[in-house]
Amino acid sequence: MTSLDPAVAARLKRTPDASGRGLVAAIAQQHDTGEVLMLGWMDDEALHRTLTSGLATYWSRSRQEYWVKGDTSGHYQHVKEVRLDCDGDTLLVRVDQVGAACHTGERTCFDADLLREVSDD
Amino acid sequence: MTSLDPAVAARLKRTPDASGRGLVAAIAQQHDTGEVLMLGWMDDEALHRTLTSGLATYWSRSRQEYWVKGDTSGHYQHVKEVRLDCDGDTLLVRVDQVGAACHTGERTCFDADLLREVSDD
Repeated sequence: MTSLDPAVAARLKRTPDASGRGLVAAIAQQHDTGEVLMLGWMDDEALHRTLTSGLATYWSRSRQEYWVKGDTSGHYQHVKEVRLDCDGDTLLVRVDQVGAACHTGERTCFDADLLREVSDD
Repeated sequence: MTSLDPAVAARLKRTPDASGRGLVAAIAQQHDTGEVLMLGWMDDEALHRTLTSGLATYWSRSRQEYWVKGDTSGHYQHVKEVRLDCDGDTLLVRVDQVGAACHTGERTCFDADLLREVSDD
């Protein structure tokens, strides 16, 4: 059961996780700088909570529970806009990130590990 | 079999798709403007091809084949850098996108469907 707007729910193309829960990917982006902060997952209820509370809320695949980003760390994501992609399987969640997005303390989850950089000629 | 650098392969945390192929999510971002363009999927070989060819190359879950973005449309993604997230399950592929990233002709796959926008007070 979920309270997600049926008109939105009908447009989602969910991928089942290992436990069969239908999820869509959610890319969190800092709304003003454009930084890509992290990738999380949402089911219908997490999306509903994100849209109505204004705080980005994910489904934790490892802990199998809802997770308001920041509830433990204080590093909340205040939602500015939510967009759905052309296939209906990915959300772009534009937020104002409080503090560090990554549990390691880095600003984004992509700061630490550069696999390849190409210099401009 | 893949030619991906074993030091990189060891850091990947793959999620099996419906056919059992281990994939990581790949967020494509325009390197200079910060636009999030699309989300695709890569297995080890697609990542190897992306890192070595300089053209973003994905695994198509629907067609079950490798897919050089732009081979059909001409809308190639020239790779500037590739980053791996803290969990090892998501790549951030910073690219120079030729033309439209979306097959609908929109610049990004997130342009068309705004679910919620919050105005600044």
